[in-house]
Amino acid sequence: MTIGVDVDFGENGLVPAIAQDVETGVVLMLAYVNEEALSKTVETGYAHYYSRSRQQLWKKGGTSGHTQQIDSIRVDCDKDTLLYRVEQTGGACHTGKESCFYRTIDGEAVESVETVFDPDEIYD
Amino acid sequence: MTIGVDVDFGENGLVPAIAQDVETGVVLMLAYVNEEALSKTVETGYAHYYSRSRQQLWKKGGTSGHTQQIDSIRVDCDKDTLLYRVEQTGGACHTGKESCFYRTIDGEAVESVETVFDPDEIYD
Repeated sequence: MTIGVDVDFGENGLVPAIAQDVETGVVLMLAYVNEEALSKTVETGYAHYYSRSRQQLWKKGGTSGHTQQIDSIRVDCDKDTLLYRVEQTGGACHTGKESCFYRTIDGEAVESVETVFDPDEIYD
Repeated sequence: MTIGVDVDFGENGLVPAIAQDVETGVVLMLAYVNEEALSKTVETGYAHYYSRSRQQLWKKGGTSGHTQQIDSIRVDCDKDTLLYRVEQTGGACHTGKESCFYRTIDGEAVESVETVFDPDEIYD
């Protein structure tokens, strides 16, 4: 894999990756990425992350079918954060919302964030 | 300070906060926030972060004047990531770009990300 920018994965080998819908600009989610997950993302054209709780690589949508096709990957000035610009199939959030950011800090629903699927029909 | 959602600051007391331009949808930057920084942000209506390298609270734009006025703060489903929706004065990046995500992973410039100030005129 050829990557032009030398990403700084730091002491724990992870960087945060923000997923943004390339068409709507909606910030969908944030998850963590190690070198292997970034490689898989570049190679396959679909967003992969590293689960800190399960300690394993995962393909977004591997279970739900709600994949994220990569339009482009950007890196920030410090080279320690990624921005996945994606075409989201279905919704990004396991709750059925299009984005994981469906609440304000006050606990109020963000009306512009739509419910796009029924999680009971997707997950066991 | 009253915050409706009980943010999970985790073992190191920090969560990532994504700053997004509320008008354009551009993802501007990512930095880290501790409980004090979040409190200051809510109280003042301007984005505050915690610098891991300097180990101190900082107000975005405190030196440059490139402040981020808070429109709203969103929290993700896991309550461990924040989304600051902001009105950005000047540019978010110390390089003079409006966003820190001005390059692709291949090292190519993102043409849509504009240069909005000359850093030599802002920083000593």
